[in-house]
Amino acid sequence: MVTHPAADSVSPEEFKAAFRNHPAGVAVITADAGEGPVALTATSVFSVSVEPPLLVFSISDLSSSTPTIRRADTVVVHLLGAAQLDIAKLGATSGIDRFADGSIWDRLPTGEPYFPAAHAWIRGRVVNKMEAGGSTVVAVQALQTKAPPAGDPSADAAEAEPLVYHNRTWHRLGEHSKIQ
Amino acid sequence: MVTHPAADSVSPEEFKAAFRNHPAGVAVITADAGEGPVALTATSVFSVSVEPPLLVFSISDLSSSTPTIRRADTVVVHLLGAAQLDIAKLGATSGIDRFADGSIWDRLPTGEPYFPAAHAWIRGRVVNKMEAGGSTVVAVQALQTKAPPAGDPSADAAEAEPLVYHNRTWHRLGEHSKIQ
Repeated sequence: MVTHPAADSVSPEEFKAAFRNHPAGVAVITADAGEGPVALTATSVFSVSVEPPLLVFSISDLSSSTPTIRRADTVVVHLLGAAQLDIAKLGATSGIDRFADGSIWDRLPTGEPYFPAAHAWIRGRVVNKMEAGGSTVVAVQALQTKAPPAGDPSADAAEAEPLVYHNRTWHRLGEHSKIQ
Repeated sequence: MVTHPAADSVSPEEFKAAFRNHPAGVAVITADAGEGPVALTATSVFSVSVEPPLLVFSISDLSSSTPTIRRADTVVVHLLGAAQLDIAKLGATSGIDRFADGSIWDRLPTGEPYFPAAHAWIRGRVVNKMEAGGSTVVAVQALQTKAPPAGDPSADAAEAEPLVYHNRTWHRLGEHSKIQ
């Protein structure tokens, strides 16, 4: 990583101010590298390729879940709807046992912990990593997905309204937010 | 990049279905590697580190702007509000001259093309790249930002409402979309 001379740089405050108005979809990433399950809420997940099916996300070195996710061969990336705000908050709250409530998580046949209530999820293999300051950008190739079938009327229902995080506030998208 | 055996893989359609409900903020990336300006609308921009100030985005090999952005030393990443939907559409429309209207773009003193109307923008240096299927994930260190000052009442005004892209539809966030 090149660090640019300080003369031509941006303070953390200036950088945060520029991103303050940049919203993002909300995901929870789970993994277990053999030492117990971890879960982490991330607003840094995007699809980069459909063939092969690849996504990336970033994880901060400061998160307690990061060492496990860095070691894991496979992860589950849950893409959350507004109805799963509780899962988003769970993965974003520090200092708690995020798996204390056994009724909201399970394990896939392949072993990964996951939240069955998520609107959609993708199980995938970590195929590449890039260091970026105090974070790691992780590339994941999808091995398995769960999503509502295309054209399913329930995909338009309230429970499928996507969850968005913006400037420390949760939002939901729907007919009310569309630009006509 | 490892390609996983087909027996344990996901079709492009399945992958797209999983991501269909994952919304994203909207950015336009501009650059000029010496052969004229390019602009590209991206829904794959996120902040990965504030110290040093780093962001990443991905660009598809299929975009006409990608060769220039891959060659450029510096880029400008515009984070768009709903009031700049016209710029988002401009950077997302194929086969047009995105710089035909000289009244909506200019050059920074450092030479990069940019859209002054953007709610916020970040000029930065490309510091790392990662191949990911048919795309390139680019890491950028911020050198300069423009954003409304924190606490500025205009940051809450209608023109600052963020723009979100979801399932081929544009949305805007505001009081109407907040989850109470």
